[in-house]
Amino acid sequence: MAKISVIGAGTWGTALAILLHGNGNQVTIWSALSGEVEELNSTRVHRNLPKARIPSEIEITGDLKSAMEERDLLVLAVPSVFVRSTARRMREFLRPGQIVVNVAKGIEEDTLKTLTEIIEEELPGVQVAALSGPSHAEEVSLGLPTTCVAAAHKRHVAEYVQSLFMSRIFRVYTSPDLKGVELGGSLKNVIALAAGMADGLGFGDNTKAALITRGIAEIGRLGIEMGGRAETFAGLTGIGDLIVTCASMHSRNRRAGILMGQGHTMEEAMKEVNMVVEGVHSAKAALALSRRYGVSMPIVEQVNAVLFDGQPARESVTELMLRDKRIENAGMDWEED
Amino acid sequence: MAKISVIGAGTWGTALAILLHGNGNQVTIWSALSGEVEELNSTRVHRNLPKARIPSEIEITGDLKSAMEERDLLVLAVPSVFVRSTARRMREFLRPGQIVVNVAKGIEEDTLKTLTEIIEEELPGVQVAALSGPSHAEEVSLGLPTTCVAAAHKRHVAEYVQSLFMSRIFRVYTSPDLKGVELGGSLKNVIALAAGMADGLGFGDNTKAALITRGIAEIGRLGIEMGGRAETFAGLTGIGDLIVTCASMHSRNRRAGILMGQGHTMEEAMKEVNMVVEGVHSAKAALALSRRYGVSMPIVEQVNAVLFDGQPARESVTELMLRDKRIENAGMDWEED
Repeated sequence: MAKISVIGAGTWGTALAILLHGNGNQVTIWSALSGEVEELNSTRVHRNLPKARIPSEIEITGDLKSAMEERDLLVLAVPSVFVRSTARRMREFLRPGQIVVNVAKGIEEDTLKTLTEIIEEELPGVQVAALSGPSHAEEVSLGLPTTCVAAAHKRHVAEYVQSLFMSRIFRVYTSPDLKGVELGGSLKNVIALAAGMADGLGFGDNTKAALITRGIAEIGRLGIEMGGRAETFAGLTGIGDLIVTCASMHSRNRRAGILMGQGHTMEEAMKEVNMVVEGVHSAKAALALSRRYGVSMPIVEQVNAVLFDGQPARESVTELMLRDKRIENAGMDWEED
Repeated sequence: MAKISVIGAGTWGTALAILLHGNGNQVTIWSALSGEVEELNSTRVHRNLPKARIPSEIEITGDLKSAMEERDLLVLAVPSVFVRSTARRMREFLRPGQIVVNVAKGIEEDTLKTLTEIIEEELPGVQVAALSGPSHAEEVSLGLPTTCVAAAHKRHVAEYVQSLFMSRIFRVYTSPDLKGVELGGSLKNVIALAAGMADGLGFGDNTKAALITRGIAEIGRLGIEMGGRAETFAGLTGIGDLIVTCASMHSRNRRAGILMGQGHTMEEAMKEVNMVVEGVHSAKAALALSRRYGVSMPIVEQVNAVLFDGQPARESVTELMLRDKRIENAGMDWEED
């Protein structure tokens, strides 16, 4: 049995806390919002996971100091835009060598850093890991079979995270490719916006499968330039997570894309979805990264044109379909004529 | 303008004939069934593509000799189990150097050969190509944006096929990896059965995304041993086609899997779906290939156990989720502890 605190009380943090408790660990959930602490303590249900009861043995607190004392593992589960500020608050309570596993996905818009890079910057001496994969919180909280990857620089860190999360319904693989795992999880949201637009335009499964396939290809091209591994983008945290995001109405990114495909502006779509649409930030970051690393990313470019230049979604899809005839993968040899 | 005959009047052959006609070619459809020729000539609609009118300029015939005379391209569009017998019938009318593009998907159960290998065997001197990708006939016939790959040993053959099929709504890439393209298209049906079973068991998007991702990984492992290229399995004819098959109710393989997930036997599922379920043949072929090449294919093994050994689908999914803890991709290095 390990002592674990989950920092952040969103749907994903809550679902993982319930999973970790079910695996026999002593679990605490911390929230920055005192109203949220009170509500969860009294109802023992997260309002966006209505079917999952939070067991009474899980402590729910607003006291960051006590939540960080003598913990074997800290699970950082705040939205990506709050990772830096939350890590900064955690600094004074951190013990040396603390293992922190981040479960949010995103890239910081102005620094273009991944979330574990931010955590290492704000919490010197920490041992970071990332948990990522095709894993809607709603389904994990219902006990539906799910797979993820625990990635870390060091093998013992990844294997420790794996050992705590692994269960009958939650299969965890390990990977040393922290960079690739984080990039796949972040950039998929841009492709999910494009897939949503195709749905909103009334296009079919053929179109969406093409966008997903060509989408992971361009994420992979960029990710490999940045030091990630090709196998990672073909794996659970790459194509796997992209598939689940593009298939599901749980995805806010896809829902926002659908609205834009139906002709709404980005602002209207944001208002309607009424929650953080991470892909809007990632779209800008992805475009900046593609330019910095000199990698062609046609889908990312078209999504940016729709989001920020007012280009109609239909024109973007047409543009993507009518590019020059191409070989699918350069670098393979043909037989002599 | 090219003269093209489509050999086979199923939904895919018909949808492609309409596409090729729309691109300005002179198109003939041949069917082995005189009743089908009569019906299509009188109704000008394929009964399984009710919204797509077959233009009167498309000739529909049962005369194989005339359908093969002076054609720039033959499109072989018969179900995979009829490829050998149809090619054998075509032999006496074949002119040397004829380009034949096969658009069916499958592996011959007893010889373990791909369909273009069978065509080359039965039609010596032919120049073969394969057209494959995420492309439900229903959607192509409605003009929804679709992408495919034209694969051939020789570049000029692939580019000729590309030039004839490419349109505003049908984007064609080329590839020299004929083997990889054909294997991806055939083996996906086995994974579609598994994905259907997960749906039938009431599992969610997380489970299905995991099966798709691990499924293409095992198809790729086998395909690379057999001479295919890793990039192909990550492309439109690999993961792309697998995604569309596992997402859509158009797929007979997925529908049969759903029924088995709900507890029906293979025979009951076949009867209910009432059409050829290609994945049942491919499942056997895939298992035989995995043994011949010494490649681990856990999903293929579990699908075979459900299909032919009466193992309940729930046990198979549990088996897949509870295998030993694993590293996602072997062969990556960790930092020193």
